[in-house]
Amino acid sequence: MRILIHADDAALWKDRLASRLPSAEFAISGENRDSQADAFQADYLVAWKPPASLFDAQPALKGIVNLGAGVDALLNNPALPRDVPIVKLRDAGMGELIADYVRYGVLHFQRDFDRYRRQQHHAIWREHPLTPKRDWAVGVLGLGAIGRHVARQLADDGYPVHGWSRSPKTIHEITCHHGDDGLKTLLGQVRTLVTLLPDTPATRGIIDQDALAALPDGASLINPGRGTLIDEAALLEALGTEEEENGRLRGAVLDAFPTEPLPDDSPLWQHPRLWITPHMAGPTPIDEAADQVAKALTAMQAGEAIDTVDPKAGY
Amino acid sequence: MRILIHADDAALWKDRLASRLPSAEFAISGENRDSQADAFQADYLVAWKPPASLFDAQPALKGIVNLGAGVDALLNNPALPRDVPIVKLRDAGMGELIADYVRYGVLHFQRDFDRYRRQQHHAIWREHPLTPKRDWAVGVLGLGAIGRHVARQLADDGYPVHGWSRSPKTIHEITCHHGDDGLKTLLGQVRTLVTLLPDTPATRGIIDQDALAALPDGASLINPGRGTLIDEAALLEALGTEEEENGRLRGAVLDAFPTEPLPDDSPLWQHPRLWITPHMAGPTPIDEAADQVAKALTAMQAGEAIDTVDPKAGY
Repeated sequence: MRILIHADDAALWKDRLASRLPSAEFAISGENRDSQADAFQADYLVAWKPPASLFDAQPALKGIVNLGAGVDALLNNPALPRDVPIVKLRDAGMGELIADYVRYGVLHFQRDFDRYRRQQHHAIWREHPLTPKRDWAVGVLGLGAIGRHVARQLADDGYPVHGWSRSPKTIHEITCHHGDDGLKTLLGQVRTLVTLLPDTPATRGIIDQDALAALPDGASLINPGRGTLIDEAALLEALGTEEEENGRLRGAVLDAFPTEPLPDDSPLWQHPRLWITPHMAGPTPIDEAADQVAKALTAMQAGEAIDTVDPKAGY
Repeated sequence: MRILIHADDAALWKDRLASRLPSAEFAISGENRDSQADAFQADYLVAWKPPASLFDAQPALKGIVNLGAGVDALLNNPALPRDVPIVKLRDAGMGELIADYVRYGVLHFQRDFDRYRRQQHHAIWREHPLTPKRDWAVGVLGLGAIGRHVARQLADDGYPVHGWSRSPKTIHEITCHHGDDGLKTLLGQVRTLVTLLPDTPATRGIIDQDALAALPDGASLINPGRGTLIDEAALLEALGTEEEENGRLRGAVLDAFPTEPLPDDSPLWQHPRLWITPHMAGPTPIDEAADQVAKALTAMQAGEAIDTVDPKAGY
């Protein structure tokens, strides 16, 4: 099948789709278009907000995949051909997935599941006094789309939530801090710290010896974000080497690392108070989305029944 | 201080409070009253729905603790003395605590945290394909106050939820089953089973070889309820003995056992796919409540400021 792609990151889409549909031919339209794109007569269009002129040049389309959940722009295109089936992407849901990862990690410490697991190895039956959620403050570093989603869910769950970003923000029911002083204020009062900052020169190694020392004794860390945020040597030092919680840091749940896969000989693997996951907190949206697109194109090509957009309903 | 107790389970309250207030004197009013109760002049009353006659016999009360969050019955008592401070119990919150325990347990399996923890021991970096919440059906056995709370929270979290009770029930967004046939129907279609039934002759050992065999391969179990619900020999057989998931049952998170503390030599402690917690999912309400009552009485006796009921506001 012949597939025309129109998107800001069309080259990336072409790459991801080509690996999933090895026998398909691809062309890219728009600003980054291939030289042959004008002559390319496509069977299928994979697009985000294509111009009307694109449809004028493509009279043989058998199907359209809309690269997003919102189809209003496409349906309002005056040149959109009638009777060509449209399939839309579902929300890849990364925010929800990461929020659930964090929810698990916070409960892991707040409800002492980490301690009970270590006790189990020694057949020790001992209940720890419960700290209620209202007394378990959580800090979220980074208040982009994902950080806000995570912070809001934790607040809805009943935890006091502190958020931090470089510039001032206001989010309902979240105590927002910003700048270097704000970071220190936040670190001093949270039981669990969640790092959801982007990887930039300013955030690399932001969780260093000083930041870890600023946390209250017995605090815990969850990193579902970028591996570069954490200074691993400082992390190991703050944990201490024993199974017992003699160090300042109680434990950490880590999903991202500077080198992935985490090397076999990394000391992180065997530390009894570290919980390691293989970068699974939030599957990369483009991969999940590319799976959806490839599946839709294959189904349309095979003439299989598929869930298409109803232009009258508008979704 | 001299404390008069009026409640259905007054003897239990007397026992729990005596251990917390060793220097206090106690008497029980009502049907189970002590022979000396009529002559007992109390400083404090700890009561649930006391009769008007009780107040007529107790002119020297300095404070009242209402054994519940609802104070309407007490405030409507025509003999209630004016100007005697009233303290009420807060909701002990057991439903929320157990719902969070279950939330952790379901995420533990749905997001493969159990597998990642086992992989970590061997420094294995391998991501498992994500099963979204919408495809992860959870079954809740027992639809009393706690079971309903848990089922509703799981549904709000995005899981399809099946509930089961002996007699028919209807709960918003929960697929309700009942009776022996309904149990079999539920077991056949859930990825995680949560047991929240009371301990009765009919529920003892309800999770036996047949019930476990009725679950889909790879299903998991969470028991925050009663230890007697589970046939432990059948559970171990369904798990298989290996670290690998060769058995029918993937794993279980267990908080309650027929004998507690779980004996040192129980084979449950060391099974790599069992997660054992020491009956901490929902702290017994009477203990948490007794803490609240003892604290309130001590504060009133010491003349400390305390949060009391406003009779005009009615709460």
